[in-house]
Amino acid sequence: MNYHDILARIQEEVLPLSNKGKVADYIPQLAKVDPSKFGMYLHLLNGQSYAVGDWEERFSIQSISKVLMLCMAVSKLGEKVYERVNVEPSGDPFNSLVQLEYERGIPRNPFINAGALVITDMLIDAFNDPKQSFLDFTRAVSGHLDVQCNPAVAESERRCGFKNSAIVNLMKSFGNIKNEVDRVLDLYYDFCSVDMNCQQLAQAFCLIANHGRGIVNDQKYLSESQFKRITAIMMTCGFYDEAGEFAFKVGLPGKSGVGGGIIAILPNEFSLAVWSPGLNEKGNSLVGMKALEIFTTQTACSIF
Amino acid sequence: MNYHDILARIQEEVLPLSNKGKVADYIPQLAKVDPSKFGMYLHLLNGQSYAVGDWEERFSIQSISKVLMLCMAVSKLGEKVYERVNVEPSGDPFNSLVQLEYERGIPRNPFINAGALVITDMLIDAFNDPKQSFLDFTRAVSGHLDVQCNPAVAESERRCGFKNSAIVNLMKSFGNIKNEVDRVLDLYYDFCSVDMNCQQLAQAFCLIANHGRGIVNDQKYLSESQFKRITAIMMTCGFYDEAGEFAFKVGLPGKSGVGGGIIAILPNEFSLAVWSPGLNEKGNSLVGMKALEIFTTQTACSIF
Amino acid sequence: MNYHDILARIQEEVLPLSNKGKVADYIPQLAKVDPSKFGMYLHLLNGQSYAVGDWEERFSIQSISKVLMLCMAVSKLGEKVYERVNVEPSGDPFNSLVQLEYERGIPRNPFINAGALVITDMLIDAFNDPKQSFLDFTRAVSGHLDVQCNPAVAESERRCGFKNSAIVNLMKSFGNIKNEVDRVLDLYYDFCSVDMNCQQLAQAFCLIANHGRGIVNDQKYLSESQFKRITAIMMTCGFYDEAGEFAFKVGLPGKSGVGGGIIAILPNEFSLAVWSPGLNEKGNSLVGMKALEIFTTQTACSIF
Amino acid sequence: MNYHDILARIQEEVLPLSNKGKVADYIPQLAKVDPSKFGMYLHLLNGQSYAVGDWEERFSIQSISKVLMLCMAVSKLGEKVYERVNVEPSGDPFNSLVQLEYERGIPRNPFINAGALVITDMLIDAFNDPKQSFLDFTRAVSGHLDVQCNPAVAESERRCGFKNSAIVNLMKSFGNIKNEVDRVLDLYYDFCSVDMNCQQLAQAFCLIANHGRGIVNDQKYLSESQFKRITAIMMTCGFYDEAGEFAFKVGLPGKSGVGGGIIAILPNEFSLAVWSPGLNEKGNSLVGMKALEIFTTQTACSIF
Repeated sequence: MNYHDILARIQEEVLPLSNKGKVADYIPQLAKVDPSKFGMYLHLLNGQSYAVGDWEERFSIQSISKVLMLCMAVSKLGEKVYERVNVEPSGDPFNSLVQLEYERGIPRNPFINAGALVITDMLIDAFNDPKQSFLDFTRAVSGHLDVQCNPAVAESERRCGFKNSAIVNLMKSFGNIKNEVDRVLDLYYDFCSVDMNCQQLAQAFCLIANHGRGIVNDQKYLSESQFKRITAIMMTCGFYDEAGEFAFKVGLPGKSGVGGGIIAILPNEFSLAVWSPGLNEKGNSLVGMKALEIFTTQTACSIF
Repeated sequence: MNYHDILARIQEEVLPLSNKGKVADYIPQLAKVDPSKFGMYLHLLNGQSYAVGDWEERFSIQSISKVLMLCMAVSKLGEKVYERVNVEPSGDPFNSLVQLEYERGIPRNPFINAGALVITDMLIDAFNDPKQSFLDFTRAVSGHLDVQCNPAVAESERRCGFKNSAIVNLMKSFGNIKNEVDRVLDLYYDFCSVDMNCQQLAQAFCLIANHGRGIVNDQKYLSESQFKRITAIMMTCGFYDEAGEFAFKVGLPGKSGVGGGIIAILPNEFSLAVWSPGLNEKGNSLVGMKALEIFTTQTACSIF
Repeated sequence: MNYHDILARIQEEVLPLSNKGKVADYIPQLAKVDPSKFGMYLHLLNGQSYAVGDWEERFSIQSISKVLMLCMAVSKLGEKVYERVNVEPSGDPFNSLVQLEYERGIPRNPFINAGALVITDMLIDAFNDPKQSFLDFTRAVSGHLDVQCNPAVAESERRCGFKNSAIVNLMKSFGNIKNEVDRVLDLYYDFCSVDMNCQQLAQAFCLIANHGRGIVNDQKYLSESQFKRITAIMMTCGFYDEAGEFAFKVGLPGKSGVGGGIIAILPNEFSLAVWSPGLNEKGNSLVGMKALEIFTTQTACSIF
Repeated sequence: MNYHDILARIQEEVLPLSNKGKVADYIPQLAKVDPSKFGMYLHLLNGQSYAVGDWEERFSIQSISKVLMLCMAVSKLGEKVYERVNVEPSGDPFNSLVQLEYERGIPRNPFINAGALVITDMLIDAFNDPKQSFLDFTRAVSGHLDVQCNPAVAESERRCGFKNSAIVNLMKSFGNIKNEVDRVLDLYYDFCSVDMNCQQLAQAFCLIANHGRGIVNDQKYLSESQFKRITAIMMTCGFYDEAGEFAFKVGLPGKSGVGGGIIAILPNEFSLAVWSPGLNEKGNSLVGMKALEIFTTQTACSIF
């Protein structure tokens, strides 16, 4: 069975599940998304691509941007990034302060909010205009020049992000945030607010599937070691408190966001984006998880 | 032996210890205080008073103001104050976020920072000009109209108070802060920045020793039940992680501050303020604790 | 109003509440106790006594024995007892392991299970036959030679005491238990299983009200400092997670047990035992708390 | 370069590091092992094998047996195994009780001590003679009939295993242990005490590399789904608090033990055992980690 047929069958199979998840509703921009949306885009490194459903419709990538932020930070700053953020999985829900306090302000990994906020703080010092640089980077690696932040989403999150404010302030009290708290938060919410569609996301993440070399501009962003590190973090920390479940069911390095998007890659082979807004109780796209599970089962192309 | 002689002997006995403590140094205004300062002021409810040392010199009362804030809140709002802050001792250091997160944003008691910040939030809603009302209240119960906030102290604490910012934001994420985070923090730092001397402090706290009736204006601020509640909280929660030690060594309800002040009361009898800037490792005035211990031993007037 | 009338009125007032509490049911011996039982016994240090209700009926004193264990340990070993157990209130439920693990096996105070188990371990090393010595001590200070352990209760608790086993093993892993785990647990359950009635309990605790001197044999068991320390711990740690509540409502040093007993003392004045099997949600006798609250309100004899 | 040369070069490269690690010393049997020992055995599923150093010398496999225990439990009991043990990585050190208490006695995953103890409890109910069945299973999948438990090691661990006793008792208090505490502990220590050499270990774990089918007896022990689950757990939870580090540096599912052994597999390809007794500060073989890192770098055969 070819990829075209596999994606079509997945769509058919997961369609009845789209009302099982719960759309994130803490900000209006996420709450009003149609829960029946479903899109999937597979980009092979050989240049072929396959798509199904609402793959052209943009959605808020949210935490998926944490991987792009990390790539950008490592590409510019190298290994010293990991002096201020650890690389181990976290046993607590994705925004817990407990572990952060016991570990003296050093986040467990770059994909929990605390970790991404420290990365944001580093990017402020590393770039003159970090927001523009992030957009430049994302556009360059995806090949889509119209990727944009969504100011309404960023502003909404800023207004209700008290837990993130608590996290940044706590880390600053431990000396692990160098810039002004509000500066860090503003930029972080800009990063999370980026809108992309499945195609753009899949093509952007070919950067990682391709061992750190951009598929559009052929630029080498990450060393082999840096590529391995980021892929390993995606493997062990990409899904909040469901990393083990994802490793089992899907068996690919990946990252999810509360907008309902999930990206998964198979190094040397492909990048695969899926989107369905309804979340399971752990905060990951319910239909997206299922779609990826069917995909790796059908194609037998997980890392295991 | 009379009180005059007892205070004199205490001064003599504790003098050699004044270099053992460590002056709080996280803000310049506290760090530059002369560590050899020592003052003590005893105000009996019968009107007599006794003093020794630098009792006329003002210092930053810091956390001692938490008791005055609580009195003011309870006096105005009654028992509903305790719906948003608990009354049990805390087993963790005074500014820990762990317990706060596990207990869903409800602070353990009004004398840890989290609790005092919730009280501050209540005072904003209860008074048109809460800072002025606090000064009015403190001046009224102490009988000293020149009690003032210290803007330089407040501003310094604001600039380095990232842990307090984390605490307020965390509580706001749980819905236990109603006003703007910065509004709460600004007012809180104003409250903590009040400068008073031993005499003023002792006379202000006669309010509590006198079962909630001001000794200057004879006004009834607290019901008998409210008085008991506040005294009980002073007894069990007044000394951070050294409440048990103070109950043993001194045996009086009290409250300390990082400025080196300690207030202790014996209901129906007296209010006693002591000041020495050097702190022990738990953050309480080293010499102040010792002075009070000698006082209750000599006078046999603890609650036990 | 005299004490006789006060106790009578208390009985009348709390009677309707006796079905509100919940009798401890984790072992059959406690579960089968009649929830309508109520007894109270007041022993003044001047020799007078007053009683009401089922004051002659024995019940399982349970955690109240922790105070007697501590008295016995301090009387024999002195201050070094406090090298292996702290004296500060605990912010967690009474048998939590979390704090114990973070504080490296040193219990917060001698009245949580962990602390009493360390005291038990000390008593094994301090006495040839610690169980007999405990009975001898309790009989001597109470003046009742028929005080006994209840083997059925001890055996039942032993069989379901997995959390206590976890606690002892955890402390032993930190080196804070010297004897065999089972030896410590067996003795601990013997201590907790003692049956006493309100009269016996009140008379035994005159030891503490009387500053450490037995009222029956006039023997000095505790120094003045040791007496103060134990009273302070009763004041701040005697009621699990309701210490602050008890300090407010009753305002006396005390200790409760899951058998429904509560002991409270006023130094120099009296010892007061109350018993009602139904517990509130914090594990303290619901009616007992209320009875003591009425008593101190009526007599105005709290420490505040 | 062929595998023979690669192993030889690895040996040469890691030899100077063998004094950098610290041999586990909490029991005499582990403490007396020569720290300069080093062995490695690679078993390809095509039947070829390569070895270097002390690959014939047996060592205590310790926690590596947790994988075999899990395979045996899943093979017999199916998915219901995961109703009593979770499958997510743990953010705390390998034997912490904190998380266990907050998560009501359900261990985070089967490779922390708590999880393996629950698996042991299941095996007691699933087999008449679980110790013999475990040996039968290990012998069958490895093809080595002389695999044995080491009674001296088991006995030594039993005598100092207070933290494990605490863990089992805590889980029993939550109802997640069905059998007698001592029965569970005894069997667990037997399982951990197994002695194997690199060859035996590599050949036993071909079971997993071969998708759950034994390479010696061609028996199908695990379904495809069960194989994936176990491999995913090895990927995310196999190295205590260094799972992310191992995923990065080695990039293979694996498991380590405090005896200095590490097993790693590449599904469909090979099973690779390495042994060097010196541990790094996280409790994993220092030289073993390095050897595996060089291996996957040289052969480019990690999962990424």
